[in-house]
Amino acid sequence: MQTHQLPVFTSKYWNIPQLDQAKLADIQVHIDTKTKPIGALGQLETIAKRLSLTQGYHSGNYQYIEIIHPTIMIFAADHGIAQNGVSIAPSEVTRQMVANFLAGGAAINCFCDSLNIHLSVIDAGMLHPVETPHPMLINQSIVPGTADFSIKPAMTHVQAEQCLLMGQQAAVQQLQTGTNVLGFGEMGIGNTSAASALLSVLTGLPAQQTTGIGTGITSQQLMKKIRLINLAQQRVQGQYATDRLSAQSALVEVGGFEIGQIVGAMLATASAGKTILVDGFIVSVAALIATRISPQAQQFMLFAHCSAENAHQLLLKELNATPLLDLGLRLGEGTGAALAVPLLRVAANFYNNMATFDSAQVTV
Amino acid sequence: MQTHQLPVFTSKYWNIPQLDQAKLADIQVHIDTKTKPIGALGQLETIAKRLSLTQGYHSGNYQYIEIIHPTIMIFAADHGIAQNGVSIAPSEVTRQMVANFLAGGAAINCFCDSLNIHLSVIDAGMLHPVETPHPMLINQSIVPGTADFSIKPAMTHVQAEQCLLMGQQAAVQQLQTGTNVLGFGEMGIGNTSAASALLSVLTGLPAQQTTGIGTGITSQQLMKKIRLINLAQQRVQGQYATDRLSAQSALVEVGGFEIGQIVGAMLATASAGKTILVDGFIVSVAALIATRISPQAQQFMLFAHCSAENAHQLLLKELNATPLLDLGLRLGEGTGAALAVPLLRVAANFYNNMATFDSAQVTV
Repeated sequence: MQTHQLPVFTSKYWNIPQLDQAKLADIQVHIDTKTKPIGALGQLETIAKRLSLTQGYHSGNYQYIEIIHPTIMIFAADHGIAQNGVSIAPSEVTRQMVANFLAGGAAINCFCDSLNIHLSVIDAGMLHPVETPHPMLINQSIVPGTADFSIKPAMTHVQAEQCLLMGQQAAVQQLQTGTNVLGFGEMGIGNTSAASALLSVLTGLPAQQTTGIGTGITSQQLMKKIRLINLAQQRVQGQYATDRLSAQSALVEVGGFEIGQIVGAMLATASAGKTILVDGFIVSVAALIATRISPQAQQFMLFAHCSAENAHQLLLKELNATPLLDLGLRLGEGTGAALAVPLLRVAANFYNNMATFDSAQVTV
Repeated sequence: MQTHQLPVFTSKYWNIPQLDQAKLADIQVHIDTKTKPIGALGQLETIAKRLSLTQGYHSGNYQYIEIIHPTIMIFAADHGIAQNGVSIAPSEVTRQMVANFLAGGAAINCFCDSLNIHLSVIDAGMLHPVETPHPMLINQSIVPGTADFSIKPAMTHVQAEQCLLMGQQAAVQQLQTGTNVLGFGEMGIGNTSAASALLSVLTGLPAQQTTGIGTGITSQQLMKKIRLINLAQQRVQGQYATDRLSAQSALVEVGGFEIGQIVGAMLATASAGKTILVDGFIVSVAALIATRISPQAQQFMLFAHCSAENAHQLLLKELNATPLLDLGLRLGEGTGAALAVPLLRVAANFYNNMATFDSAQVTV
């Protein structure tokens, strides 16, 4: 089976700039004149290079980096697969945790508060929406929850297209406030199952390798989770006669509404030439899908945190990406992305303000 | 040979409190009622536990953590061993970089500026002191530079004692301003050689294992560095008839004035019940010496960054310590310690302010 490709699943639709890699030589010189041994700031130098290459493309000034109002966008949705009891909590908890975000009581609220990060929450398809409007909340639910992907497609092709368009809309709205760094987080009971299934059908890796304990399920639940993802993988491999599905087919078959909207938001951020902060495992799967649609998108991504989920390391390898932090977080909500923000600020500060050997009269 | 032990090299002199480990159960309960899966905040939970155990001891309140005016103290000194050309730069650069710190142009200045950290610089024994007084600079030089430890003891027993007392004095002065987190950094051409030699004579590990490229020497320089440390190790092992020297003898034979003053400052910080942020390899060697003098000191330490220097990993293993960050830094100056400060702030915020399952009405 091969469905006609929807325009939003083509790189042409997104028109993401190809950055001027030749400028990297100048950027390297700018860094190497600073009063420190060559390479001594490690990954902070990598961050500075990526940011200056990105920002210089539009500003023309490759010698200056700005970090403007970093924002974490948490996309929330529910998953039909959760009906099988493959999570530590029932689907009701998605709504409860979104209410917790809006009330300021969750981990990500504390992180954003301490680190001076703006927070936005998007209902991308929750079973039970939050009824009361809230300034922090954007309602753009596709429908209340996906179908159970172990037995049928998680969503329709039209819904998959809507995911990308609505994610784009949310990111553009955020970028219009002037922010130039968007970090992405997620909330959705069952969404590590969707992420593992996506990784399996996108790469051909067996469910045993892509599936882990998420936020802490029992070994019995893990066995079931693997079995269900395996079922889904067999179903779609037969149907599409390939072990590596396209981004569109993967999203339709085993995706999630929050994951799909994150893909659209990432592609929109890259199209605008702004920086994407990738959180943990689930958001990294969205990043993989975004790069499948437009490989250029990866130029704008910084991978914040290596999740405790084993499959995340396989995925980072697939993307040839090195995450900045490894603090054993397994929470989601964009907590890993938030913790990387101070590193970006420090990288910008050293890049802009550190003395050169000449200016400081240092001998070597 | 066995010299009489000076009082400052005994745990009795420092009188560091033994924290109430039994409180850890309550602290764990406090963390586990928060709206997140058990353990989902990884190392941030470890930080919160350590901080609440430390601060609760004095305040009696184990439910609240405060991070007050974190401060980085950079101790600077010169090393006789540098005469052998085992560094990327001449000793003159110690003074030049200290001048750079005072002018605000170094990496650590940018880091502290971005992260709202106070910075203090201490001349512990520079060859060429900074002549002009500066509000950020404390002059407490022992003498201008140690002796070349490859041929004779780096300092006298009286000087080693002075190191600890003067480090104590600088830390106490800083703590009187109200800070409750002291991070330690260093500057001193040749001080990775001293640190490697200290690690060798304290643990019996051969120079080949404790010695690395520091901030980036050539392989020829590395060979020489290993040979000189090996010479020193042979000299002292014969003299003391042991392959594991005491803290005092190690500091006298192959130490550095900045390393010795950091040891004193760490022990004073622990005595006051405040938190010690340990930077990279060289500062970790000071931490090892501090724990040899008083094992209790380690209760107050957080290890900020895993240095690119291989020996650092051996040392962390010796201390059974897990560093928070691994960003490939190899600079010193306290840059690794500075980057850990936002993690402490975030840990305090989640510990104090995150909602509980009850308060947020979350089901699990």
